[in-house]
Amino acid sequence: MYNINGLNEECGVFGIINNKNALRIAYYGLHSLQHRGQEAAGITFKNGEYFETIKGRGLVADVLTDEVISCYSTRTAIGHVRYATAGGLGSANVQPFSFKFYDENLALAHNGHIGNAKDIKKELEEHGGVFSSTSDSELLIHLLRHEKGDFKTRLINSLNKLDGSFAYVLMHDDEMYGIRDKNGIRPLSIAKLDDYSYVLSSETCAYSVIGAKFVRDVLPGEVVKIKEGKIESYFYNDNCSQNLCLMEYVYFSRPDSTIDNINVHFARKLCGKLLARQKPVEADIVIGVPDSSISAAIGYAEESGIPYEIGLIKNKYVGRTFIQPTPELREKGVRMKLSANEAIVKDKRIIMIDDSIVRGTTSKRIVQLLKEAGAKEVHVRIASPAIKYPCYYGVDISTYDELISSQLNVDELCKFIKADSLSFLELDSLKKALNNVKYNDKNEHENRYCSACFNGDYVTKLYDALEVLNMNKQEL
Amino acid sequence: MYNINGLNEECGVFGIINNKNALRIAYYGLHSLQHRGQEAAGITFKNGEYFETIKGRGLVADVLTDEVISCYSTRTAIGHVRYATAGGLGSANVQPFSFKFYDENLALAHNGHIGNAKDIKKELEEHGGVFSSTSDSELLIHLLRHEKGDFKTRLINSLNKLDGSFAYVLMHDDEMYGIRDKNGIRPLSIAKLDDYSYVLSSETCAYSVIGAKFVRDVLPGEVVKIKEGKIESYFYNDNCSQNLCLMEYVYFSRPDSTIDNINVHFARKLCGKLLARQKPVEADIVIGVPDSSISAAIGYAEESGIPYEIGLIKNKYVGRTFIQPTPELREKGVRMKLSANEAIVKDKRIIMIDDSIVRGTTSKRIVQLLKEAGAKEVHVRIASPAIKYPCYYGVDISTYDELISSQLNVDELCKFIKADSLSFLELDSLKKALNNVKYNDKNEHENRYCSACFNGDYVTKLYDALEVLNMNKQEL
Amino acid sequence: MYNINGLNEECGVFGIINNKNALRIAYYGLHSLQHRGQEAAGITFKNGEYFETIKGRGLVADVLTDEVISCYSTRTAIGHVRYATAGGLGSANVQPFSFKFYDENLALAHNGHIGNAKDIKKELEEHGGVFSSTSDSELLIHLLRHEKGDFKTRLINSLNKLDGSFAYVLMHDDEMYGIRDKNGIRPLSIAKLDDYSYVLSSETCAYSVIGAKFVRDVLPGEVVKIKEGKIESYFYNDNCSQNLCLMEYVYFSRPDSTIDNINVHFARKLCGKLLARQKPVEADIVIGVPDSSISAAIGYAEESGIPYEIGLIKNKYVGRTFIQPTPELREKGVRMKLSANEAIVKDKRIIMIDDSIVRGTTSKRIVQLLKEAGAKEVHVRIASPAIKYPCYYGVDISTYDELISSQLNVDELCKFIKADSLSFLELDSLKKALNNVKYNDKNEHENRYCSACFNGDYVTKLYDALEVLNMNKQEL
Amino acid sequence: MYNINGLNEECGVFGIINNKNALRIAYYGLHSLQHRGQEAAGITFKNGEYFETIKGRGLVADVLTDEVISCYSTRTAIGHVRYATAGGLGSANVQPFSFKFYDENLALAHNGHIGNAKDIKKELEEHGGVFSSTSDSELLIHLLRHEKGDFKTRLINSLNKLDGSFAYVLMHDDEMYGIRDKNGIRPLSIAKLDDYSYVLSSETCAYSVIGAKFVRDVLPGEVVKIKEGKIESYFYNDNCSQNLCLMEYVYFSRPDSTIDNINVHFARKLCGKLLARQKPVEADIVIGVPDSSISAAIGYAEESGIPYEIGLIKNKYVGRTFIQPTPELREKGVRMKLSANEAIVKDKRIIMIDDSIVRGTTSKRIVQLLKEAGAKEVHVRIASPAIKYPCYYGVDISTYDELISSQLNVDELCKFIKADSLSFLELDSLKKALNNVKYNDKNEHENRYCSACFNGDYVTKLYDALEVLNMNKQEL
Repeated sequence: MYNINGLNEECGVFGIINNKNALRIAYYGLHSLQHRGQEAAGITFKNGEYFETIKGRGLVADVLTDEVISCYSTRTAIGHVRYATAGGLGSANVQPFSFKFYDENLALAHNGHIGNAKDIKKELEEHGGVFSSTSDSELLIHLLRHEKGDFKTRLINSLNKLDGSFAYVLMHDDEMYGIRDKNGIRPLSIAKLDDYSYVLSSETCAYSVIGAKFVRDVLPGEVVKIKEGKIESYFYNDNCSQNLCLMEYVYFSRPDSTIDNINVHFARKLCGKLLARQKPVEADIVIGVPDSSISAAIGYAEESGIPYEIGLIKNKYVGRTFIQPTPELREKGVRMKLSANEAIVKDKRIIMIDDSIVRGTTSKRIVQLLKEAGAKEVHVRIASPAIKYPCYYGVDISTYDELISSQLNVDELCKFIKADSLSFLELDSLKKALNNVKYNDKNEHENRYCSACFNGDYVTKLYDALEVLNMNKQEL
Repeated sequence: MYNINGLNEECGVFGIINNKNALRIAYYGLHSLQHRGQEAAGITFKNGEYFETIKGRGLVADVLTDEVISCYSTRTAIGHVRYATAGGLGSANVQPFSFKFYDENLALAHNGHIGNAKDIKKELEEHGGVFSSTSDSELLIHLLRHEKGDFKTRLINSLNKLDGSFAYVLMHDDEMYGIRDKNGIRPLSIAKLDDYSYVLSSETCAYSVIGAKFVRDVLPGEVVKIKEGKIESYFYNDNCSQNLCLMEYVYFSRPDSTIDNINVHFARKLCGKLLARQKPVEADIVIGVPDSSISAAIGYAEESGIPYEIGLIKNKYVGRTFIQPTPELREKGVRMKLSANEAIVKDKRIIMIDDSIVRGTTSKRIVQLLKEAGAKEVHVRIASPAIKYPCYYGVDISTYDELISSQLNVDELCKFIKADSLSFLELDSLKKALNNVKYNDKNEHENRYCSACFNGDYVTKLYDALEVLNMNKQEL
Repeated sequence: MYNINGLNEECGVFGIINNKNALRIAYYGLHSLQHRGQEAAGITFKNGEYFETIKGRGLVADVLTDEVISCYSTRTAIGHVRYATAGGLGSANVQPFSFKFYDENLALAHNGHIGNAKDIKKELEEHGGVFSSTSDSELLIHLLRHEKGDFKTRLINSLNKLDGSFAYVLMHDDEMYGIRDKNGIRPLSIAKLDDYSYVLSSETCAYSVIGAKFVRDVLPGEVVKIKEGKIESYFYNDNCSQNLCLMEYVYFSRPDSTIDNINVHFARKLCGKLLARQKPVEADIVIGVPDSSISAAIGYAEESGIPYEIGLIKNKYVGRTFIQPTPELREKGVRMKLSANEAIVKDKRIIMIDDSIVRGTTSKRIVQLLKEAGAKEVHVRIASPAIKYPCYYGVDISTYDELISSQLNVDELCKFIKADSLSFLELDSLKKALNNVKYNDKNEHENRYCSACFNGDYVTKLYDALEVLNMNKQEL
Repeated sequence: MYNINGLNEECGVFGIINNKNALRIAYYGLHSLQHRGQEAAGITFKNGEYFETIKGRGLVADVLTDEVISCYSTRTAIGHVRYATAGGLGSANVQPFSFKFYDENLALAHNGHIGNAKDIKKELEEHGGVFSSTSDSELLIHLLRHEKGDFKTRLINSLNKLDGSFAYVLMHDDEMYGIRDKNGIRPLSIAKLDDYSYVLSSETCAYSVIGAKFVRDVLPGEVVKIKEGKIESYFYNDNCSQNLCLMEYVYFSRPDSTIDNINVHFARKLCGKLLARQKPVEADIVIGVPDSSISAAIGYAEESGIPYEIGLIKNKYVGRTFIQPTPELREKGVRMKLSANEAIVKDKRIIMIDDSIVRGTTSKRIVQLLKEAGAKEVHVRIASPAIKYPCYYGVDISTYDELISSQLNVDELCKFIKADSLSFLELDSLKKALNNVKYNDKNEHENRYCSACFNGDYVTKLYDALEVLNMNKQEL
């Protein structure tokens, strides 16, 4: 609904411990993660001895009103913003999930997707387990409750049963945990706010807003426990490796975030530069599709020497409550979100940079917009490889039918979107770009990435019937 | 509240005649003018024989809901978006104003400010006149009602009594009028939607959204009457000249609008280029303050060869319902709207482009933001001249105290905002830039502009005590 | 929408002067007048030197929120609750109306209807007058502004030009006025809150809520001026007489209000008693249609010796936002507002007391409800005379077509509503009842009443074409 | 918040099966049960193969908007209105609860309180059970999932583990169940809408609204299964007996409901009559505290021959969004909800009938109200016995401290509320009244009732520490 592109990230998670402004900080933090999910938001916090949860459908500012926030005083809170993935949009699936047991309190917020959820769930249900949501995020709590021993043992055993992508922020009585899956598919990092106060966030862009200092990324497979101003860390599995989802750099994350030592804007700009070298084309101007493609467009312009212009304008007041056009108006091309700047594009040969193509309909619409505004040529350049495979790690592209690039080759797609030429960034170039903009030279080994949606190299086993079916279908 | 900058435009006006989708088109049109006013919105339309008005506080999408729009069928509508200027924010001042007389119906939407409003109002009140609002926009209706003769005579006589800036969209029974003051201070133009349907809008950006074709600007002093698919035109005064408010190019208008033959993005980009030539400085990157300074920043980067980077990120989810920070959080520098991209600005010498400086506090805050994020040097370059004089033509800067540049010279201001250097675009350069990017070479004479806020050259006589006082104070 | 009956009162007015809790008191006062109008509400109050107005569609509690009320501090306020009468429901017609002139501030709230509004308005418009609303309430302000001399002179001259029903609460700079038309058609009274604080209200029920002590009714034709804790009084016309609208006792007012020395509950109960004597009928139980007929039903039961039972239950949670039934559900008789108590009415001969019959459809529906619940006989007794003539004094029955009793005689109506018998209270009985329950024996002369809707004896001249047409049609 | 009295019922449940208007009917049904709970509302219905739930804080009309209802088409739905009891007001506790298992779908709505919830819950948690709410209503689902065998076996075994009060409406795939605890403490009945469509409701008042025909009460211990237009019935326990909560007749239920063959209005009116015989007192008028005491007041008046008058008026527009009075206003006695009718009570000796006294503060306030309005004497008569013991079956009086009658004897209480005399209905009289107004003479045995709050005779074992403590304390 919000994203012009059609690709939707599922979640952002946030946690703050040991700060008297915990609720407000959680609010500001979640607000800066709003781009990761606009469907629902919520926080769970310690209210006296128990956990209290405020959550609901809508943006952070809709759900967490001042009226609500001012009622409570707490020092620890976790929060979540959500775009619907597994579990549907029922309000029972809005996170965080909070549970009060006779012997402990538990609450969690989850970004990612558990591949073997169905199997685990069925087994638990056969033994009397009752799930309050259809989301796979609740699973960890059930596993934890079935384990015996100290909390660390229970946590390690439980996490090892989960296969998939996850970044968890978890509250256990007085402790807060940050946990990242052993393949490091989803991002999570730690920052320090004061001497005793720590923050966990899906993206680093949250830290500058609240004035926290970035400490480090949570590592793949790492469990970070924060209690009484101290951090403890252990790994739940010996076999960990970094495989961050490439779409985090390409599309999801905010340009001012830095994930696994790579700044998102830098990554995108470099992608634009590499793209410029790949298939040069003569043109008068370079334009980007706002907002996520601007960095790449600037990089392309810089590298090619062709001037960057603001050829497409996004209406920043587009919200959710919106009047539907009549069919006549739709035909006439009512374009509420995006307008072509006619004065700029008229009679021009244009290189139009976009970050990705999912269904192809948006690209087609933008090309048409530009042509109607008088563009002589529109050369579409995509700052990422073609998406050909479904994602089973938390992005809402789960069938091949939704992916135009699994149906059409580049030439066919070029015709479909009616561009004068079309080209995607090569996967190797993308990876190269990323490793080139890494901050930390001390980090000798190159980062690895999850590129499953581009080349079908899934980082984990596939589980559900649909997944396997999809794979087979593709292989045929 | 919305604008980081502190400068606020007062209004946008829109009209549509003879189209069966008139209400929806008015909605889309106003929506694309939303940047001109976010405090209130409204439409007046023919509902059978009478005029119906729907208006209220809030954004277009808040006021004109689908529920409301679907109830009515009409072929003619005018609309208004408003930022509070003269008249305060009382709901009585929300436009359009609509009046039902025993012999005619009248409704109007106004962008601008009437300088001699107070005098006219007093005179009318002394003869029994009752004003429903404290706004000066209602004046024209009263004057019209006091005139005798045919409507054209009444209108010409009434308009000649008004001194100030105005772009009116007016409905009179079955006719719609677009009127621009004789100095052409506020913009207004005409477009055609179908064979019989005409549209009036403050900015041309509204036309692409609804699929209308730009016809031409309404000329200074021109009265355009639209009825039954035909346009008639006359001038209410012989002494007309073009003096568009320079701030329309510098700050208010959307980059994809074209006003008096000058595209806003082009104008801004050229300002950036001229700025780059003016006071060169060595630096690593050029950044712009989003959104209105991006065009100038790109121009500056292009001209100087210094790379343009996205060093400041605007949170696009910042809305109106917002949780107030506690003092502690404020001190820590909670920056909800704008974040520095630390990875980009750290250890860099930065040229920061902004469109204007009003009170100076925002610039100071952004410089601090960049320094805290590690910027080595911050050189502020403003893509317009220093604002030293109040505006009496519809922009909400009416006292000298609000204008830092009327208090401090450039060096003092540079110290105040803690920049490493500061420079404004020279007024001559600005004018030159504008005339250079004019479309229409046939138009031999150069455009003139209202530059009162920069150099005190007011286009009209000054009226109110305050205005004169202000001028005297300045002269001392 | 709210009233089961179909008869709707137009307004309630309220004023408070010289009290530091003025806004809250106005809120509580208006809230207790809510039954007089649920469509819109508003207050105007002194905010520093000027008048501020908060008003809108909806109930008092919707429009005057705590958030809004807490922002202001004032000692004087007037308020209004409104059901739509003349002027339609456009938000421009929501009261109070407030006007700021160069030499004075004026605001007013009006209950009633000005018969010669059209003529006065046309004359004013011909001389340049501009009306902001289509309501006739604004007239007084225009007249006031056309008069010369001191305020008293202007007010007396203006009021004498108005012919119709009115109770005004008016603010003029630091003074508050309560004014009642010379025929005393609409109610208005004064109470004292503290030593210096006075209150004006349409009904006395507002006083107990705020702890004020009733002083006296404003008299027909009286102008009460309150300033600095002092009351002054004069009459604007020599020819005044008491003609309170009978429907105030029959239907509109709250049972705990006392108007012109007659308590509403007492009046209604006595009506019930007289009704019992009029056409006795054998029956098992007496029931009343909630809420306004309960007093009469109790009186009837007391007089007849037949037990009063709660045979009809009103759902107190019925509000405005309501789900529409599908046609099937409507046919099945979905009765959200009113339910028959089957256990009580089954196999019973019932005397059903209602306060009045307007269109007859509601009575028909209730008789059906009772019969479906098993009632053996339903004898309808109406505690007022048949309404045969339109009201031109502020009640929304303005055409004969809406009045079933101007179309059908009692026997025909009885058949239409499918009752076993039907009888109305005789007008003489009603008047007798009222004079019998008068408090003040010192008041020698009998009260007179406006009974125009029952017998066509209009208290004032009729003006508008429609009115005259209606009368002629009736006479034929 | 809503109830003047201070006593709050916890819930109403509703179910509809096999009707194409199921959602609307559920809406209307819940709406007529609104008096049983105003804090939250919800429905669960079949949406294709799965169960969908819409629920939230607020009134039925707030939660179930037309917008929401119109989106779905279903033939089966259950619903719930709730006043907070066990579980607090967290949104996780809003009912119905719905669960999707790999092998079945389950949803339930619950009215009542499970005494041994804590013990069962702890045991389940020790074996890995995870509860999504803190409510005891979810328990049945967990028990059901731990049982093996066919659904009937699982249900019987599960129900037998629960000790307390319950009326359940339960959906299991295509079946709907109505279940009442073996002591019959909470009401539940069945009605028929069409040939194939059945309805379950806490109270019969819901049936007349939707046009359904009452079939019969669900019996204590009975499980009623409805599927494909057929009803099956069995008992989960051999040891069942009728013990309806007396407060259902005294206070909670709507007067037009009939529970276990006793109409509520009749019961109350008879209580009033018995009360009149008990302690006669000379007086001028009888008044009732609206709304729940009116029936008893009418009965009292009828029996005593003293006229019934409307001495107290309830403002029907009192809602939730309400402006807080300042301390000064509070002191002055701002009475928004209830006003004395001064004209009626002044100089009168009054018998004031109320249904019950919980904390005593309301009675005290009303007596004061009447005295301030000039009442000469106020004799308080309570149409139920004194409440001395906490309720553990679903009414929110769980500690002795809240019950003034467990602290003060009648004389002391009379002084506390400043009445001239005070008397409660005797328990035997109450029981006698109820059995006298029973419909069905064929039903030979007398009804029994739960009178625990009056005399401490708890129908079930007590469980929680608090309960036992309370008992011991009382015994000392």
